[in-house]
Amino acid sequence: MAICDSQGYAYNSSGLDSSAIISLKPDQSVAGIPGDGKASSDSIAEIIKLGSSKIDGVLITLPNLPNEFIPGIVERFITAGFETAFCDALKRTSAMEQMFALTPQLKQVKSTYITGAGASPGLLTAAAVLAAQSFVEVQAVDIWWGVGISSWEDYKATVREDIAHLPEYDVEKATAMSDEEVERLLESRDGKLELHNMEHADDLLLELAGVVDSRDKVRVGGIIDTRSSKKPVSTTMTLTGKTFDGKTSSHRFILGDEACMAANVIGPALGYLKRARWLKDNGLYGIYGSTQFMPLMVS
Amino acid sequence: MAICDSQGYAYNSSGLDSSAIISLKPDQSVAGIPGDGKASSDSIAEIIKLGSSKIDGVLITLPNLPNEFIPGIVERFITAGFETAFCDALKRTSAMEQMFALTPQLKQVKSTYITGAGASPGLLTAAAVLAAQSFVEVQAVDIWWGVGISSWEDYKATVREDIAHLPEYDVEKATAMSDEEVERLLESRDGKLELHNMEHADDLLLELAGVVDSRDKVRVGGIIDTRSSKKPVSTTMTLTGKTFDGKTSSHRFILGDEACMAANVIGPALGYLKRARWLKDNGLYGIYGSTQFMPLMVS
Repeated sequence: MAICDSQGYAYNSSGLDSSAIISLKPDQSVAGIPGDGKASSDSIAEIIKLGSSKIDGVLITLPNLPNEFIPGIVERFITAGFETAFCDALKRTSAMEQMFALTPQLKQVKSTYITGAGASPGLLTAAAVLAAQSFVEVQAVDIWWGVGISSWEDYKATVREDIAHLPEYDVEKATAMSDEEVERLLESRDGKLELHNMEHADDLLLELAGVVDSRDKVRVGGIIDTRSSKKPVSTTMTLTGKTFDGKTSSHRFILGDEACMAANVIGPALGYLKRARWLKDNGLYGIYGSTQFMPLMVS
Repeated sequence: MAICDSQGYAYNSSGLDSSAIISLKPDQSVAGIPGDGKASSDSIAEIIKLGSSKIDGVLITLPNLPNEFIPGIVERFITAGFETAFCDALKRTSAMEQMFALTPQLKQVKSTYITGAGASPGLLTAAAVLAAQSFVEVQAVDIWWGVGISSWEDYKATVREDIAHLPEYDVEKATAMSDEEVERLLESRDGKLELHNMEHADDLLLELAGVVDSRDKVRVGGIIDTRSSKKPVSTTMTLTGKTFDGKTSSHRFILGDEACMAANVIGPALGYLKRARWLKDNGLYGIYGSTQFMPLMVS
């Protein structure tokens, strides 16, 4: 097991102590937890140095900002000839387009990658693929999520990503904001951000899976409350389509409010990582979307 | 395209006329529609004679009664060395156990089979696999379906299958009932059958996928109204589990009432058949459950 952040990494061939990781403060690095590891300004290089013989799979849940960040990390693994299974919780369509461009290189190093495997895209997008099966034509896929976090401090990168989706903002502007500026913005909105028509790769993944013939049939939006762990709305995927006998109907997939963002993102991502490993072990290399394969259970 | 029923078959290498099939009366055989085909008391033998070079995939939606029927049909294909992709809409756990016993033979003839690929098991069971990803422990999976059909005449086999799930009935007794006996039973229940704790292979498939550690955590039941195409209840899959941080929550997958049984069963089955073909084309033979692979879109 290896884990890394921007300040260092930890590694232990017989596993890391999860309670040590959980008890870390937001400004503490995983480099400090028991195990073989150290502080490093380039922890990805350290992980790559461990070599793919030690690593069955790599879960990439780095911040999504900027767009080039995750694809750039993957390119470093590829350049080093790293042969393993990968999975990410990538969100933006433009970032995912960069990921799919890596298909030939991933195949060359016999690696298998599943992208967009969090909640949205991920769990909810995959549910849309299932829902679509009842219909001969899909008219709309609406994903409307609710997230409640008691404090934005633990989710600084995620909240900045959300701010970047506001009409007056973009990725650069949100990334450059100081903590004080983020706090002032949240203060002016009662701690809530309501987002519409977000650039989420659910559109690309559902087009790729043949569920929609045009990306604009997929809409993603939601509300994040940064002052309460209670969700402001129930996260719901609604797929509307036409059946073979001409009826219009909607299937819905609704997440329970008590399941937090971490459970709905990291759970599916680990399941998809295991599926990516299965695909690799069966000689199927390259990159796939979370809409293409059911995740495997982790335990 | 080939299609067969108990009285004969039709085949045409450039496709069959779907409107001719749709306009058949319940007592008319597909043998009568335009194409190469004929009346036959063993239409399966005729399909097998066509040879696997002509057939990309076989969708088996025969009546589920008796339990040995569908596994027996598959054995005939295997014995003939038929190499293709298969998919079924099998329902009973005991029938599916017979299917999985065919794994070595299916691998030997390089065929790939996806079983339990209708609505339940199928669409709803696969949704349970997705829902399970948010949880470290799954406590219960409840499938509660509603079916509305304006007349039981078009669904004679399905209604008998449902009757077999009533406490006082079994497979043999339901199969032996005359149409008049079925009508009297339905009359005595205002046209409705309410079924609980049905023997449905959702339990086997979710155990196989690692979603539940015990089959009795999966409950399937529902209501069929044989006198109205309006569904008596909305078909819902509810999965309840515990998250990594100790919360209990339920995810739900709810089918739109306007989507009829045929759309929810045959749609997924065709999607899974296409996935079975994909698996075969990638050298993955044997039998898989609908809980293991997301279906592909058909069009």
